[in-house]
Amino acid sequence: MEPAGKAMRHFDDELQQLQERLLAMGGIVEERVRLAVGALVDRDAGAIRRVIDGDRPVNDLHLEIDGRAFTLLALHQPMASDLRAIVAAIKINTDLERVGDLAVNIAQAAERYLTHPPVKPLIDIPRMAGIAQLMLHDALDAFVRRDTVLAQRVLDRDDELDALKMQVFRELLTYMLQDAGTIEPSLDLILISRHLERVGDHATNVAEDVIFIVSARDVRHHAAE
Amino acid sequence: MEPAGKAMRHFDDELQQLQERLLAMGGIVEERVRLAVGALVDRDAGAIRRVIDGDRPVNDLHLEIDGRAFTLLALHQPMASDLRAIVAAIKINTDLERVGDLAVNIAQAAERYLTHPPVKPLIDIPRMAGIAQLMLHDALDAFVRRDTVLAQRVLDRDDELDALKMQVFRELLTYMLQDAGTIEPSLDLILISRHLERVGDHATNVAEDVIFIVSARDVRHHAAE
Repeated sequence: MEPAGKAMRHFDDELQQLQERLLAMGGIVEERVRLAVGALVDRDAGAIRRVIDGDRPVNDLHLEIDGRAFTLLALHQPMASDLRAIVAAIKINTDLERVGDLAVNIAQAAERYLTHPPVKPLIDIPRMAGIAQLMLHDALDAFVRRDTVLAQRVLDRDDELDALKMQVFRELLTYMLQDAGTIEPSLDLILISRHLERVGDHATNVAEDVIFIVSARDVRHHAAE
Repeated sequence: MEPAGKAMRHFDDELQQLQERLLAMGGIVEERVRLAVGALVDRDAGAIRRVIDGDRPVNDLHLEIDGRAFTLLALHQPMASDLRAIVAAIKINTDLERVGDLAVNIAQAAERYLTHPPVKPLIDIPRMAGIAQLMLHDALDAFVRRDTVLAQRVLDRDDELDALKMQVFRELLTYMLQDAGTIEPSLDLILISRHLERVGDHATNVAEDVIFIVSARDVRHHAAE
């Protein structure tokens, strides 16, 4: 096989590996969001602590993926959709690292929440978490498969998350207005709902990157309209 | 002059222009944060509306800068610190666009805040805005001058912002506990203080990118320790 073909195959292998590492990173941060919200619902202080203390693997993977992406850019000098894919990988890596941070933020708010009696049974917050995780999962799936239809579905689901966040807010406001004793714990639940909304925002960023890679069309700011 | 030298000079000019556009973008979003917080303090509903409706130039500039950066990567296939600088420019561009979004979020919360009587004279929130703007300004200055000392100063200032955010929260909590009528407007002020904290977070991201460009040393997650 000629050198050019070899280099190309090598590049494809490396890009494949880069994507697999991103998927692994996605799986870890998704799981950490799930653990944080599950621990909140179960009032499991030990599990909450483990989320707060356990972001080292995410940070290590973040640095590793960035390193791989820069090496690919420098050694292979890719063009067109390969170039867009690698720059997207660097951006997606940043988004996933922030989701890992948000899992920690959720656990920190949950830890404070546990110092008070529960305000209410938690129903909408676990639902928000489920939607946010699914969005993230689908966005990464769309990235690996270059599936713009799935990416668009992620974008469409953002409104559900927003509606639930408003619902959580309005309900907790009612509690706070009736009983000052619920103000502090309610504030932590509101904060958690906003962290989950931001997990969805990061999934949205990934989905937008997917559409950009595939079509070189920028859907941010509805530029395509 | 030989073609290589010409291409190099052309590349340097383009990189220079890219940086100038990023500075322009930084100036615009910084100003929009300043306007949003100023309008909150002055209870100026018209100025608040103008911030909410006025993010078109930010979005246009965001797309333009991304386009310039991708063109530079594709045409010149830069190496080492030039490669890091351009990828950093793409990331910084994303950070600045988010700051633009946060200015809108601040204005939206301010618009709701204005529907209630003022909870208190606003002192810490304008101070937070001042620090966040300065951080952003210094971070971009550090980027253009490749000044890691200034970048480090930006990173150090993040604690000030965090302390002020906690102070705002504690003070407003006292109001809310004493008078349920202050709960809704206080929640908007708390939200605004968090948006300003996030402006500082984006400045921190930029500062970390500067250190990465110059030294290829990754200060995220304290990897250098």
